[in-house]
Amino acid sequence: MLLRDAGEREAIEAVWRRLGRESLSDDAHYWHMGDRYALLTTDVIYGRTHIPGGVDYATAGRFFAAINLSDIAAMGGIPRTFLLALSVSPETPVEHVEEFEAGLVEVLDAHGVEFGGGDLKEGCGFTAAGALYGEVEAERIILRRGAEPGDLVYVTGKIGRAAASYHLWKSRGEDPHPMLKVEPRLREGRAASRYVSAGMDLSDGIAEAVACLSQVNRVGIVIDYDSIPLHPLAVEAIEDGADPFFIALTFGGDYELFLTVPSEKEGDFLRAMGGAVTKIGEVVRGDSAVLKGGERFAFPERGYQHFS
Amino acid sequence: MLLRDAGEREAIEAVWRRLGRESLSDDAHYWHMGDRYALLTTDVIYGRTHIPGGVDYATAGRFFAAINLSDIAAMGGIPRTFLLALSVSPETPVEHVEEFEAGLVEVLDAHGVEFGGGDLKEGCGFTAAGALYGEVEAERIILRRGAEPGDLVYVTGKIGRAAASYHLWKSRGEDPHPMLKVEPRLREGRAASRYVSAGMDLSDGIAEAVACLSQVNRVGIVIDYDSIPLHPLAVEAIEDGADPFFIALTFGGDYELFLTVPSEKEGDFLRAMGGAVTKIGEVVRGDSAVLKGGERFAFPERGYQHFS
Repeated sequence: MLLRDAGEREAIEAVWRRLGRESLSDDAHYWHMGDRYALLTTDVIYGRTHIPGGVDYATAGRFFAAINLSDIAAMGGIPRTFLLALSVSPETPVEHVEEFEAGLVEVLDAHGVEFGGGDLKEGCGFTAAGALYGEVEAERIILRRGAEPGDLVYVTGKIGRAAASYHLWKSRGEDPHPMLKVEPRLREGRAASRYVSAGMDLSDGIAEAVACLSQVNRVGIVIDYDSIPLHPLAVEAIEDGADPFFIALTFGGDYELFLTVPSEKEGDFLRAMGGAVTKIGEVVRGDSAVLKGGERFAFPERGYQHFS
Repeated sequence: MLLRDAGEREAIEAVWRRLGRESLSDDAHYWHMGDRYALLTTDVIYGRTHIPGGVDYATAGRFFAAINLSDIAAMGGIPRTFLLALSVSPETPVEHVEEFEAGLVEVLDAHGVEFGGGDLKEGCGFTAAGALYGEVEAERIILRRGAEPGDLVYVTGKIGRAAASYHLWKSRGEDPHPMLKVEPRLREGRAASRYVSAGMDLSDGIAEAVACLSQVNRVGIVIDYDSIPLHPLAVEAIEDGADPFFIALTFGGDYELFLTVPSEKEGDFLRAMGGAVTKIGEVVRGDSAVLKGGERFAFPERGYQHFS
């Protein structure tokens, strides 16, 4: 069977199963280190798939730093050190590598993360992988496990930016740069880490987060579509005819945080977050669903799948 | 300028220089963590460049684990946790991914290293990047800096395996598997870490190690070619007409350790290493050189360069 036929999630699950490991793992790998957890994460992007044509390499570098940092943010952690592994075609202009690294380092510097160099090898296209090390106090780690019925569901920031940018780029040829304008929610993750019961980042969209947290915690999650804080571009894309569930639920790429909060901690949580979050749903005992305009919908197909 | 025209080392140096960083960095990045150093390294390989045609994916996975572990071995460290980032074409059979991971995990398990999952994305060809975390006691870290005139130069294992396998594969169509049969010298690195003044792995060959340690330490290194412990395949390749300096000095890929030892510690070093090392030269105040059959040669062009 080819990966094209298996689809990304199935392929990953098959490979992980074969190795006897959990496929619904947390955003970063973690292990005990004294009174803290060490966090380690790796992300890989391939130019032609993950970077829309016309986007400059500095933006791509900033995006790449941000999606790696987002994994640490989703765990409530502090990122410390980043290494870059590049595998690129000999036809690549040196300037592309330089711009990519400059964008990457700009974001690392902004968040106080040390850039420790890395590896550069001949490969195909433009493939970047990161190795990011971080830390979090044992009592503040945010895992995907921990959500319970009655918990409230919050998201940071605005939703639908990436999906809307993709739609407007495809339908009207608009600037695709907003697709990659990811803000790693490190400050929000740290603030939330004292209060939340579970969480993850919205790399693959709300539908995927609901599916993942539901399965890990054996609960349902009901999302109130009308409460979702849509990004201005998302409003524009929906007015342009885009499917609202595609924009708000399934496309992903926003890298906001999706957090579950025990109701008794909601007040403290909201004070700590200072308006940076919006309530969009609740953890329940029954099935997951989306409410929209008084109607109840089953969740649409989960987020974007590579390979298929 | 394209990477093809810059060549790998120049491209890396240009990129690192632009970012104000040192290009002659150690095998792994390191930072203080209490009484230890934390070690973090990343390596990336691309199937068509780094894996000869006909080699099975389990062997490639073992190779990939080994070259990452070698970076930690070269620092005298203990590898702890490994993450894998794969970027592969949709045309890739799922079995290739499974075999690669199985080979990788086999080597990680053999060295007590935890496999923490990773990332799998659509890309081109078969590109694998690793994120490996390790540790070493502060007083035992092996760096590239520290060699002084009068120190003795030792290598672990046998030299020329990878070059000879490459030669015999190209000239006679022999099995290319030995090219990838890397043994990470973790035990040797740990034992040596109490005695050596500097060291690195022979990923890029002896000529490259000499150039690197000479530059970092502002010394020369004289290698006695006739003392180099040639791998049986290297002897065979040289008998087949391969250039001895290409086989023993410039091709690389052996991932043995290249170590400098203060003369007053040589006795203790040799007892600790138990016959696993061979003396091949000396650190000097003058220029680097190779001695062979009573003649003195300037060092040949440094190791294999990608891109050009």
